[in-house]
Amino acid sequence: MRVEVVAVGTELLLGQIADTNSQWLGEFLAAHGIASHFHQHVGDNHERIVLALRTALARSDAVIVCGGLGPTQDDITRAAIADVMNVSLERHDDIVEVIRAMFASRGRTMSENNLLQADVPRGATIIPQTRGTAPGLICPVGHKVIYALPGVPYEMVDMVERAVASDLLARVRATGETSVIRSRVLRTWGASESGLAEAVAERFEALAEDPRITIAFLASGIEGIKVRLTARAEDDEHAEWLLADEEALVRDAVHSRFGDIIFGVDDETMEDAVASRLLASGDTLALAESLTGGLIASRLVNVEGASRWFRGGVVSYASDVKYDLLEVPEGPVVSALAAEAMAEGARRVLGASVGLAVTGVAGPGEQDGQRPGTVFVGLALGEHTSHAVLQLPGDRPRVRAYSAISALDFLRRGLDARDAERT
Amino acid sequence: MRVEVVAVGTELLLGQIADTNSQWLGEFLAAHGIASHFHQHVGDNHERIVLALRTALARSDAVIVCGGLGPTQDDITRAAIADVMNVSLERHDDIVEVIRAMFASRGRTMSENNLLQADVPRGATIIPQTRGTAPGLICPVGHKVIYALPGVPYEMVDMVERAVASDLLARVRATGETSVIRSRVLRTWGASESGLAEAVAERFEALAEDPRITIAFLASGIEGIKVRLTARAEDDEHAEWLLADEEALVRDAVHSRFGDIIFGVDDETMEDAVASRLLASGDTLALAESLTGGLIASRLVNVEGASRWFRGGVVSYASDVKYDLLEVPEGPVVSALAAEAMAEGARRVLGASVGLAVTGVAGPGEQDGQRPGTVFVGLALGEHTSHAVLQLPGDRPRVRAYSAISALDFLRRGLDARDAERT
Repeated sequence: MRVEVVAVGTELLLGQIADTNSQWLGEFLAAHGIASHFHQHVGDNHERIVLALRTALARSDAVIVCGGLGPTQDDITRAAIADVMNVSLERHDDIVEVIRAMFASRGRTMSENNLLQADVPRGATIIPQTRGTAPGLICPVGHKVIYALPGVPYEMVDMVERAVASDLLARVRATGETSVIRSRVLRTWGASESGLAEAVAERFEALAEDPRITIAFLASGIEGIKVRLTARAEDDEHAEWLLADEEALVRDAVHSRFGDIIFGVDDETMEDAVASRLLASGDTLALAESLTGGLIASRLVNVEGASRWFRGGVVSYASDVKYDLLEVPEGPVVSALAAEAMAEGARRVLGASVGLAVTGVAGPGEQDGQRPGTVFVGLALGEHTSHAVLQLPGDRPRVRAYSAISALDFLRRGLDARDAERT
Repeated sequence: MRVEVVAVGTELLLGQIADTNSQWLGEFLAAHGIASHFHQHVGDNHERIVLALRTALARSDAVIVCGGLGPTQDDITRAAIADVMNVSLERHDDIVEVIRAMFASRGRTMSENNLLQADVPRGATIIPQTRGTAPGLICPVGHKVIYALPGVPYEMVDMVERAVASDLLARVRATGETSVIRSRVLRTWGASESGLAEAVAERFEALAEDPRITIAFLASGIEGIKVRLTARAEDDEHAEWLLADEEALVRDAVHSRFGDIIFGVDDETMEDAVASRLLASGDTLALAESLTGGLIASRLVNVEGASRWFRGGVVSYASDVKYDLLEVPEGPVVSALAAEAMAEGARRVLGASVGLAVTGVAGPGEQDGQRPGTVFVGLALGEHTSHAVLQLPGDRPRVRAYSAISALDFLRRGLDARDAERT
């Protein structure tokens, strides 16, 4: 079973937007053990979309086409698929009703061209829309298939998880390919990719002779380095056993070299790691953010149930907000002293049991005699207030993003250290 | 002259890295008025690279292939091109010498497989390497051409600018095509894609007969809808004229239907639009964020020079932070009254001239009897404090992101309205 991804949109060819859909679908297919040998980008042009789809069907068993399902004149994927299927488009009244209802519920008037989204190639199955106005389509072409999905990533991902995955996997099973592929991702913060590779070099060599397990490293930029373990086995249970054994060995190898740098598994984020600890200890958290400007807070509130442990934060961008509101002693605001005072100030002003603060230089210029990338993290935890000094690389947004995850990691380690003392 | 980009690398198909090369090349080609109708991704597999190159040559006049020129076993683009050209590979001693010298100058020992990089399909011209060890190749195939470039963006870009651009443009001139392509993006917030399409339907129809200008809509999710105008003309000056004329017509059409919803052009963000107004009026801004949890602040600090007008913010996630710190009157915190009091409180606590606040229900549950997606924006501006009520769609992160840009848009409009009153 080989699946080709075709991303539709002149903006992709012109380089105006990045094609994150093909990347996401590539990861998704790989995670499910489905081969993908080619991707294509094609513009909003009928003949060329038809040509791209025919090219894809000639060399792959299934095609996932993203984009061109919207309501405007340049959304022509539906018509191109109908041509490839050699059928006509039919307007579906039930889709019309859904679209009308969606507009009504948002209190907006619907323009008539929205109904183009109710046109479906004869013989196609509909994937009902839940997040946008355009439904997806499952379009059989002989014994092959085209899945048509919206180009908006949020809508595309939803339809893949809700409908395409099960249809594709049923087709895979029908081919008699029975091995399963399962993977697990260990998320690390604080080590380099080459350092991690060295730490697990022995496992790498041991697995060179073993086709059942592979290890790969994914540099995920501001979210650290991921170590992905992939197991191929006859069924889920065996794959999970293989993963569990390998995970234990890799964790040992990483821990003995770098200590506690694995903060999460699979989709678990650094804020999830922090949230579970705060929830368990019954603590509440307050933030004081200077150079991160609200970035830490905005990560924390994405955790479901954050209101149980998150009090709030002060974004103290101007220096005198630090002095006046947070009662930081007059003096350089990019310093260990200021970071600690900010953490204590945040805890006091916002009435929390734990205070976390970040101050530093995002660049490009120096501040308080400190060079760009210098960041101080302050942590007020029980009777102890402590700090960390970081030197981070990159431009302003990167220094900010690294600061945010580093501060959360400092909090994670601080909570663990306290809990270890208590027990 | 149509150019197809083929990016080689299994890591692209697996979604392990983003394909920034195709995006960069797409922008580069568009800027030079060269059409590109298709891109492909293909893995490190000889037969499939050959197939991808043949597919590209069949539908395009030139192919730029990136990746697979390095020294390891999975770098096989050279051999695939030789197959497509139907010639053999020859080792070039001068390239061997350059590679040996590169290693020597870095004080590193060279493993023999590096010499694979000196293998060149017979008939190809070499693009000397300056940043990496692999040279690029210009490979004629009949009257068409394949450009082979390294996959490392930094090396690829260098070779395009140094050698591919001039060769390509010479080929374009030889065909007698002399046109350039220029585009401009108008960024809107507050209208649907279909509504915009209807607003400019007349322009769409008028342009259907005119090959010089096209209009397209890009739904950019939480950043609104972009209207892209693309002009093709004999030179830059004429293209800019066409764009300026069309922009004026589209702006009129959009404005007469939706009012002032175009907030920026090209790369200009909503925070840029707000920043330029605050800077011009000499105002300073303070925020109070509830459901957005620091998202607005983190957008604002990405604007260069934000410290000139941004004081800071309070992330008042817990209700009693609103009461105690911001002095919001006791009562429901998801309300117009609370939003206005938060805006005034932020302005007072943080010592700014303008206060902006957001409170609302991110979901999934109700709060204060309000359903998910209900958001109140408060704005304290001079003597006037006002509010807006929004009903936003989507899950928690989406409601948050929409709230953030909506609040900034409310501030943008508020500042404009005040300035209009003043003059």
